[in-house]
Amino acid sequence: MRDITPLVAPRSVAVIGASANTEKSGGILFKNIVDGGFAGPIHPINPRATEVLGRKASPNIKDAPGPIDLAFVVLPKAGVRAALIDCIAARARAACIITAGFGEIGPEGRREQDELRELVRAGQLLTIGPNTIGTVNAECKLMGSFVPFPSWQSGGVSLFAQTGIFAGAAMVQHMAQDSQRLGIGKSIDVGNKIDVDELDFLHFAAEDAATTVIGLYLEDMRDPDAFLPLAARVARDKPIVVLKPGRTPAGAVASAYHTGAVPMDDGELDAMFHRHGLVRADDVDDFLGTLKAFAYLPRPRGRRVGLITGSGALGVMAVDELVTEGLELARFSGETLVAAGKVVPDWQPLGNPLDTWIAIDMAGPRAAVEVPFEAVLGDPGVDLVLGLLLTPPNADFPEVREVFESLRARHPDVPLCLVLTGGTARLRWMHDIEGLGIAVYPTPRAAARALRALTWHAGIHAPIA
Amino acid sequence: MRDITPLVAPRSVAVIGASANTEKSGGILFKNIVDGGFAGPIHPINPRATEVLGRKASPNIKDAPGPIDLAFVVLPKAGVRAALIDCIAARARAACIITAGFGEIGPEGRREQDELRELVRAGQLLTIGPNTIGTVNAECKLMGSFVPFPSWQSGGVSLFAQTGIFAGAAMVQHMAQDSQRLGIGKSIDVGNKIDVDELDFLHFAAEDAATTVIGLYLEDMRDPDAFLPLAARVARDKPIVVLKPGRTPAGAVASAYHTGAVPMDDGELDAMFHRHGLVRADDVDDFLGTLKAFAYLPRPRGRRVGLITGSGALGVMAVDELVTEGLELARFSGETLVAAGKVVPDWQPLGNPLDTWIAIDMAGPRAAVEVPFEAVLGDPGVDLVLGLLLTPPNADFPEVREVFESLRARHPDVPLCLVLTGGTARLRWMHDIEGLGIAVYPTPRAAARALRALTWHAGIHAPIA
Repeated sequence: MRDITPLVAPRSVAVIGASANTEKSGGILFKNIVDGGFAGPIHPINPRATEVLGRKASPNIKDAPGPIDLAFVVLPKAGVRAALIDCIAARARAACIITAGFGEIGPEGRREQDELRELVRAGQLLTIGPNTIGTVNAECKLMGSFVPFPSWQSGGVSLFAQTGIFAGAAMVQHMAQDSQRLGIGKSIDVGNKIDVDELDFLHFAAEDAATTVIGLYLEDMRDPDAFLPLAARVARDKPIVVLKPGRTPAGAVASAYHTGAVPMDDGELDAMFHRHGLVRADDVDDFLGTLKAFAYLPRPRGRRVGLITGSGALGVMAVDELVTEGLELARFSGETLVAAGKVVPDWQPLGNPLDTWIAIDMAGPRAAVEVPFEAVLGDPGVDLVLGLLLTPPNADFPEVREVFESLRARHPDVPLCLVLTGGTARLRWMHDIEGLGIAVYPTPRAAARALRALTWHAGIHAPIA
Repeated sequence: MRDITPLVAPRSVAVIGASANTEKSGGILFKNIVDGGFAGPIHPINPRATEVLGRKASPNIKDAPGPIDLAFVVLPKAGVRAALIDCIAARARAACIITAGFGEIGPEGRREQDELRELVRAGQLLTIGPNTIGTVNAECKLMGSFVPFPSWQSGGVSLFAQTGIFAGAAMVQHMAQDSQRLGIGKSIDVGNKIDVDELDFLHFAAEDAATTVIGLYLEDMRDPDAFLPLAARVARDKPIVVLKPGRTPAGAVASAYHTGAVPMDDGELDAMFHRHGLVRADDVDDFLGTLKAFAYLPRPRGRRVGLITGSGALGVMAVDELVTEGLELARFSGETLVAAGKVVPDWQPLGNPLDTWIAIDMAGPRAAVEVPFEAVLGDPGVDLVLGLLLTPPNADFPEVREVFESLRARHPDVPLCLVLTGGTARLRWMHDIEGLGIAVYPTPRAAARALRALTWHAGIHAPIA
């Protein structure tokens, strides 16, 4: 076991290939690091510049003033090997090879990559890449990526991705959201996974106090026999969500093409993940949605779901999805039904799902939310609450935050998810409930998937099918 | 068979319960119809008003000047029966009962609803509802709904929904999108389906020249033996997509609660839909995404998909999804590979998926799109094209519309879908390609589902599993 802290949380960085030309990867990456406000020294390395963006440049990393934890290598392919030799000579602790064109391009590239691996291992240089967009540590404000992230949100989620550009593009999209973002403290993209791998990362994340939830995008596992038992131990405290494509033989071939990953039998892999307590996501949306459940919601005490719906149709669809995912419909207590019944006419049947649309006309839009949620969240027979709310103009009201804040404060231990359907008010509601620990999902299916993962991880649940 | 044109495309409407109070359903609905710009006469009916929003009110529909095709009934429950009797006496052709509190509330409500059914059938009054948000016909600008739709887009899709408020809320959300909306000419929501049903609607849609694609949200089928053979005939020309919840026993019970629907065996239902050429959607997103494929894309000539990707990881995920849905990966011709190879370095392997990320650096972002799409769209071995493009700043370029417009013009017969991942440029790209007949999906899975439906309907494909 080795400590990858210098890679994930460096105290100082160098950028080999830094330039003032922000059309080039080296220029973009350097600017992103400077603009991001990295807490430690930032050293541009460029033999043809004396300074870059106001920082004194060194011709070689060996000439840089002061010790360097992490060196980014952003050079044409031909210069990478020499740069790594220089990093080792300069006693840098870690390197991130941005440059592409190695293992992902075929046998010749894999041979060159293997030679680099021998080199960095011999020199004890912790290395990620080649073919990566870099690494982000929001806690020390290291935006070490050639994709800019103007609105990154920090938090307890730590991500590890075995991919080139994809993780970056997905994060750009995610962090551009107005609300419901994940708080991601660390995100490292190992690209072709030349050296540092999921096992190293898991050791780090297990010890890292700031990490509460772990997300892994894997194209292969380097050493399943070491990785899985460790993952099983870590996952008891810190849920681990895995996205691993190549489920089909054709996908596995494409994966082998992409990162040189060795195909594995997918059914076997599923069973292994399951046995070791890892949650497997279906796709990127499911991956982010499941991480959100773990990051936003308290641990449930059971799997009985209380449904509150503004739409009978959505209620039916949600029942289908919840039952398919192995969750149960709660049986509401008499008290709950009496309380919820106060905002609907006598003729309205009361049950689970609790249909509250008519309450908007009868009691007003605020009471149509406040009264049934208060009743259902307080019902001892309810372990999780899913609200399917419609937000056309007549359902809107100004005190959305106040209502949900107070519901959360009175019932902090019950996980609460919403599916919101409607026009512009929908976005405002999402914005209003930001930070209250309420997870919003686009569809009943997405919510059901996330709630299944949450309960399964809490050990309450029938095994994931 | 009866003609429901007076209901779906009325020449004149009345609103029984119209008022100037836009806090009430009757006031909102009347205002929506007036603001929507309905082409024919609009008659407010209200015994306590002489005019509503500047239109002369009549105390009773029997007193309204001129013939009435469609009367909306927006009254408290106690007044509904008398209003329908008046509609029949006034020789109105159709009625839309907005009022809720009938079949959906239990045995007593079902009995009352059955009595209303006898009444309207005896009076030959084509009736939808009770418990509906109304009906929209964008072609004659009838916004007959108590949910306002300021930005409804018209087109060849016709929708039928057996639900109360849900269809409206889903449409509010859909029509609030900045791009990639469906063009929906007619949308009728039959609520509890007292009278006019899916069979009537299908007869109408089959004959309606403006209808090219049909979407049905059903909680039950009134007469499967009549409906399914007709659907099979209609679907040959006009694809029919069905969303039918209640897949699980618990969901079926919830559905029975919601609209009084009679539970059906879901596996049997699936098989029936399949045998009769109907595409069944999984959920609302899948429903809208599949309708979009039919509305936006030409009929494919085969099922060989050419993949162009900005991300190896997305390519792998897309291969998984496409193969799972029964589609094939195309084998690119030598010419295609030579052409696409011009924008990537020699070391880049060429295949399907075609990875074009590096082309951005080498040939610029415009050529990185234009060159590979031109090659793949023109390849005779490719039947459908799916592009998985990343849109961080370095991938962006101003001539997005120009490039895709010209690609579409040169290759109009090849269905083209995109999945866009990235920050703000993503939204601008979606906006730029608006109207070009390019379907954008949020994930490879959503795209694969839609392409499967498209090829299956074209009769090319292995049966839907």
